[in-house]
Formats: sequence, C-alpha cells, structure tokens
Amino acid sequence: MAAVDALIIERMQSQVPVIPLLADHLVAAGGKRLRPMLTVAAARAAGAVDDIAAPRKLAAAVEFIHTATLLHDDVVDASDMRRGKVAAHLIWGAPSSVLVGDFLFARAFELMVETGQMRALGILAKASSVISEGEVLQLTRAHDLNLDHDTYLQIISAKTAELFAAAAEAGAVGCGAGEAEIAALRAYGLNLGLAFQLADDALDYGGTSEALGKNAGDDFREGKVTLPLLLAAARTKGTEDAFWDRTINKGERTEADFARAQALVVGSGAIGATLDLAGDYADLARSALDVLPASDWREALEQLADFAVSRAA
Amino acid sequence: MAAVDALIIERMQSQVPVIPLLADHLVAAGGKRLRPMLTVAAARAAGAVDDIAAPRKLAAAVEFIHTATLLHDDVVDASDMRRGKVAAHLIWGAPSSVLVGDFLFARAFELMVETGQMRALGILAKASSVISEGEVLQLTRAHDLNLDHDTYLQIISAKTAELFAAAAEAGAVGCGAGEAEIAALRAYGLNLGLAFQLADDALDYGGTSEALGKNAGDDFREGKVTLPLLLAAARTKGTEDAFWDRTINKGERTEADFARAQALVVGSGAIGATLDLAGDYADLARSALDVLPASDWREALEQLADFAVSRAA
Repeated sequence: MAAVDALIIERMQSQVPVIPLLADHLVAAGGKRLRPMLTVAAARAAGAVDDIAAPRKLAAAVEFIHTATLLHDDVVDASDMRRGKVAAHLIWGAPSSVLVGDFLFARAFELMVETGQMRALGILAKASSVISEGEVLQLTRAHDLNLDHDTYLQIISAKTAELFAAAAEAGAVGCGAGEAEIAALRAYGLNLGLAFQLADDALDYGGTSEALGKNAGDDFREGKVTLPLLLAAARTKGTEDAFWDRTINKGERTEADFARAQALVVGSGAIGATLDLAGDYADLARSALDVLPASDWREALEQLADFAVSRAA
Repeated sequence: MAAVDALIIERMQSQVPVIPLLADHLVAAGGKRLRPMLTVAAARAAGAVDDIAAPRKLAAAVEFIHTATLLHDDVVDASDMRRGKVAAHLIWGAPSSVLVGDFLFARAFELMVETGQMRALGILAKASSVISEGEVLQLTRAHDLNLDHDTYLQIISAKTAELFAAAAEAGAVGCGAGEAEIAALRAYGLNLGLAFQLADDALDYGGTSEALGKNAGDDFREGKVTLPLLLAAARTKGTEDAFWDRTINKGERTEADFARAQALVVGSGAIGATLDLAGDYADLARSALDVLPASDWREALEQLADFAVSRAA
C-alpha cells in the first residue's frame, strides 16, 4: 500500500497549483484507503506474487475515482466536513472542487491506460457511470419517506457497493486470475460495500464525528432518507407521523430535531436492525471467498468484512 | 454523422429518468457537433473507407466529454444560457448538472473501451485531464488584468484546443492511419481549436446571442479576462485604467459597464487583432493538412478552418 500511496501522490501533481493543493487536502487527510487496498488484496488473494505493478496502478486509479466522487458529493450535499477536515469546497470554492474532481477522474483513466488492461478499464468505466447514476437516484428519490427498501438498496448498491465490487474485480482481472476467482472477488466486493454503507448509515445516527470523519447527523440534516430512518419511521407509525412528515417530507428541520430523530432511531431498534442486515451482507462477502485458496490475504479480506460492521457496533 | 448522433442518443439513456432528460436538453439543442465531426472527418481524410465503427464510437465519446465539460462549466461560471437554451443547472439544479456530467464522462470511457483502441483511449484520457487543468487555470488566473498573453494561450489551448486536437488524433488513430497523418491531424485540430476559441472570445464582445448560443458579454460579466479585453486594456492605457481596474481587478461591475467595455474593445481594434491571430492559427491548421492526400474530406477540413474564423468576422 505504501507503493500505491506514492503513486497517488505522484499522479495528482499538476503545474496548476490549486490542483495538488486541493487534492492533497483530501488525500493527506488519510481516509481508510479501503478501496485501493481491496484492489491490491484481491490481486494477492487471487494468487498474484511478483508483478503487481498493474494492480497497483489500478488501485491508485480506484482511489482517484473515489476521491473525485467525494469532492463532487460534498458540493452536491453542501457538506461541511470530510475525513475529519473542513470540506474542500468551503476552502477553495465549489467550482474548484468540481474541476479538481474532473481532473482526478481523468487521471484515473490515464493510470488505467498505462496498465494496458482493457478489461479492467471497462470494469472501472462501467462502475463510474453506475456510481453517478446512484448519486442522481439518491438526489431525486431519497428525500421522501415513501422510499421503498428496494430503491434504497439500489441506491447504496450503485453509489457505494459498485466501486467496492469493481475495485476487487479489477484487481483480480489485473493479475490474470481465473474467471471463478474474478466472480468471487466481485461478489465479495459488492457485499462488502453494502455492509459498509449500511454501517455508515447507522453510524450517522449513532456514531461520533471522529468515527465518521464527518458530522454525525448529516443525513438527517440533508433530509436524506436511509434505512435507519425508514425503519424508525415505520416503527413509530401512529405516534410520530407528524414529526417525520414535517422534518423529511416537508423539509422543515431545526437543529434540535436531530436529537429527537436520533432518539427515535436508536429507541426503535432501527440501528440494531440496520447493523443486522449489514452483518448478513458481511457474511455473504466472507462466503464468496470460499473458492479462493487459504492465504494471509484471504484472511485479511475476511477480517475486513468483520471490520465493516464492527466499527459501527 | 447521423450514425454518430444515433449513438449519442442511445448511450445517454439511463434508468434514472433525470439523466437522459438533462442530457437531452443539451444534446437536442444541437450545438455544432464540431468535435465529433472532426473525429469522423479525420478518420476519413486519413483514408478510412469501410469500417469506421471505431471512429464513430470515439466521435460519440468526444461529444460526451464535451457535453460533460459544458455542464460543469455552466455550474462553475453560473452561466444562464447554453446553445440558445436556459442552462441545465437553472432547470434541474447544480447538483444534477454536476452528476450528469460525471455520468456522461464515464459513458464516454465505456464507449472507448468498446472500440478496443487503447491508444485512442489514452489520447482522450490525457485530453480530459488537460481540459480540467485548463479550466482550473482559467478559474484561478483569468480574473486580473496582469494575465500575460502566454498564460491566456495556455488556458485556451488546454480548455479548448486540446479536445479538438485529441478528437482529430483519435479519429486518425482509430482507423489505423500512419504516424505522419496522425501527427498532421493532431496539429490541425490544435490550431483549429485555438482559432475557434479566439473567434469565440471575439464574438463575446461583438456577436449576437444567436451566433453564440449564449449571451454576448458573459466573459465580461464573469470578469473573465480574454485576449480582446487584454488588448483593449493595453490600447486604452492612460485613459481607461480606472474603468478596467474597477470592473476587472476590483470586480465591481454594473450592467451598463458591458456597453462601455464593448465600445472600448471594438473601438481599440482589439476585435480585429484577435481575429487576425485566429486567422493565423486557421492558416496553420490548413497547412498541417498538406501531408494528406487530396480528398473531399480534406477539403471539408480546410473549409472548417475558414469557418472557425469567418463566423466571427
């Protein structure tokens, strides 16, 4: 991963000074580097031993795609915080965040071209269009209480799990793994991504800013409907309808409302139910790895599936 | 080009309804389709006869990249009009424009992957990062009168000419042209793009909204320093310094100021000088085609170089 980090730093450089400054604000803030780690670990778990130059470049490309979507998301959601720091658009302005996101996205494809791996490139290009579809779907649908569970899962699958799936799949493809291993690692990534986003959505009602790297309560403040809220609204039906209708459907929220929403989400058991579902997807992720030979890398991937949920418990 | 248009319509579809709606707002508005035409014409002029399936897909990809940058530019510049219609972000909101831009950009790469042409993909990936660098450079540097001519040319080369160059180069590469033809078509595209942007910048002070597809005076209203303004400020030095300093450096502009700026730009001969420079680049574009065999396609490209300037004269 140190080699991937070095590649990330090297390839975000530009003669236009704002670009590396703004990109470094996010990259240096750390973040978990989960997605590029998935690419490298998938390649290793699928048997790559020596030449992992291609998976490393694909891993850096994955992190660039992720960073670009974070920059754009924070503009779209007008978020204040990211990775424990003030969001870039509040420092350099939304226009710079949009354009530097575009730059990183383009650089991701330049890195992929260098690997010469057209199939991996196709996987990550497809993932990129699915992610933006998921973001638009969230923007247009995830602001009313009538959101059904299927559409919610469709949104988190597209906006989050698809990149986890593509990251793992591309790593396997990039090291020449067999089709069964490629399919297994894609399934692992997809289920891991679902578990991860469900836990993230739970943390938004129960976690601390430190654990999240952003403000707890952002989803509620933005009127973004996630599973914990959907479950809480259903479980408090008849007693709290007016509260949910006002704060979500009508979008009339005061700062004090978050404490009440949080109490209802926690009190109704919606956090626990959300984490149970996350645990189910983590189990599916782990099972998908069964076709791979036992190795330290496979074990690391299994532990990652546990961590995706346990960090929120 | 009808085949390219059909491909554009087909590939901008999505199950998320806002995406094709918003994309179609721009695509159906027409636009000149100059850049995809360049890709197809370059392939033809380089000798492609039968199989131009790859250049066609590359052409559609080029138009998607261009449309994505228009969507993002209009958000960045808070522009009101595009291609003679209300800018998309004023109808669907800036968040949707940002995300649909991302979607089209990703779809562009999906189309390129289908051609299997890694070299063409690399050319358009590189062009995409150069374009965003040019946009950031413009955002951070093009708002004061101390902008030097070299930096201005660097900006228009990156934000506009690079995609013209890449569009022509990718077309030549995509039909298997020889290296001399590829280099010639790239040089043609680059110089055509410079001529085109110089004429566009002149039109912003002299043209009608109909000819521009956007409001004349947008550059001035946004405090964007272009060559006509730089020349006019230099030529009215000593008499109009306070006006330029207030409107550009201090950014204090009233609606009435545009008429005065326009009068100074036109009266100082800055339009003529800008179009002369555009004419020089158009000549370079035409000369670059000398290595190609005579054909109807080469002639069409030559006429396009004339049109790039004459539309503003």
